[in-house]
Amino acid sequence: MHNDHDTTDPMPFEVLNAQGSARVLLVCEHASAHMPDAYGYLGLPPEHRESHAAWDPGALGVAQEMARDLDAVLVAGTLSRLIYDLNRPPENPAAMPAKSEVIEVPGNADLSEAERERRISTIYTPYHRVVAEALAMQASPVLVTVHSFTPVYHGAPRRVEIGLLHDADSRIADLILENPATFGDHVVERNAPYGPADGVMHTLNVHGDANGHPNLMIEVRNDLIKTAEQQRLMGRLLAGWVSDALAKLSTDVAGAL
Amino acid sequence: MHNDHDTTDPMPFEVLNAQGSARVLLVCEHASAHMPDAYGYLGLPPEHRESHAAWDPGALGVAQEMARDLDAVLVAGTLSRLIYDLNRPPENPAAMPAKSEVIEVPGNADLSEAERERRISTIYTPYHRVVAEALAMQASPVLVTVHSFTPVYHGAPRRVEIGLLHDADSRIADLILENPATFGDHVVERNAPYGPADGVMHTLNVHGDANGHPNLMIEVRNDLIKTAEQQRLMGRLLAGWVSDALAKLSTDVAGAL
Repeated sequence: MHNDHDTTDPMPFEVLNAQGSARVLLVCEHASAHMPDAYGYLGLPPEHRESHAAWDPGALGVAQEMARDLDAVLVAGTLSRLIYDLNRPPENPAAMPAKSEVIEVPGNADLSEAERERRISTIYTPYHRVVAEALAMQASPVLVTVHSFTPVYHGAPRRVEIGLLHDADSRIADLILENPATFGDHVVERNAPYGPADGVMHTLNVHGDANGHPNLMIEVRNDLIKTAEQQRLMGRLLAGWVSDALAKLSTDVAGAL
Repeated sequence: MHNDHDTTDPMPFEVLNAQGSARVLLVCEHASAHMPDAYGYLGLPPEHRESHAAWDPGALGVAQEMARDLDAVLVAGTLSRLIYDLNRPPENPAAMPAKSEVIEVPGNADLSEAERERRISTIYTPYHRVVAEALAMQASPVLVTVHSFTPVYHGAPRRVEIGLLHDADSRIADLILENPATFGDHVVERNAPYGPADGVMHTLNVHGDANGHPNLMIEVRNDLIKTAEQQRLMGRLLAGWVSDALAKLSTDVAGAL
């Protein structure tokens, strides 16, 4: 499915707003539905190539606005999650899924070990190395990842609009959830529509929890961030929440010293 | 001069147009005059903080246009060359210069070994690692770096407008220089205003020559690329030269097989 000859793989990450000086690192693993020609669209029919199965629509625009507002570095993925899902470890079948929610991914069926290794070494490994590098540049970093989810899942509508997800380290989510007056009309929930049991904590676990860095995964329902203007407004709202949480986090730390 | 406490270093590189599929990798080491607050402007007076000593004015705009036109990945530096000159190896005094052409850089005088090591590990090493990584993504890459130079040097005006620089590997420069009809009114010269004896070949040597990848350093006189529009037009012109050279390079290789 992937022709190695005379092809050029894209870099698996973009580093945006690299001069940002905030203590927050923003990460957007599913920013793009891009599939280089060599992948032959993984055998997908046209209607699925840019569906939500292939990426998180709207998430990059939200993350870019947050990067501007917070003055934060943003590391974004450049390839479809169907080629490699950067929020999954290599040993997880969902990393290169042969089936995603309801669609089959022919190009991932019966992957050779060599092709799996190639995707791991050219996509997963460099992506997570640059995230680690970006965190290491900071004295006391906070990791925030930005995702989007579909309004309907397996036929059922979802009421939650913004999910604040975490595993062992709930510090940032707690600080935001303390302050519901800032939510406006939005339905905001902890660990929804996914939680630790859904295997979506890989980036948080590896880069946040393992290093003691406060961390948060934000999930936004994608019908709310369809247009550039919606993404901008949502990004600004979320940046405000994160900024408030950081201010309180610093105060708490200072108070504990 | 650098306060480690509670500061956040920026990432030393940006990766732009990461999805580019051209076989060219563009590199712009001196894209930015940025100095994080912790450096205290290296003790420089205001008039020198954004002078050509601190960066290559106009080069990033030219490189960005080339990246778009060629569909190429661009790795750009994010910090002033006075903090670390990414086109110099760590052992070269010009890497963290205490004196640059005619200005003194107080913040680089008497640098401690620890501070030198810190800049090497947080700026030089990650920058060149990502350049190597980007080249490794490509089957047969060509490296092109983009710089600018001043119209006057040590009091003497420079007639050359665009320099095509190379060390051992002259392939791309030769192919472009074969075709002067595309130069318009521009004064284009080989290895001018600098050449291999001036110590400016570090990036080309390490990433190009050492790996057998064709490579070229382009130097543009900065009075020709002051405005965004000038940068765009110059970038388009240079992209055309590089594109023509690549087409001929492929033909030559095919002919030799």
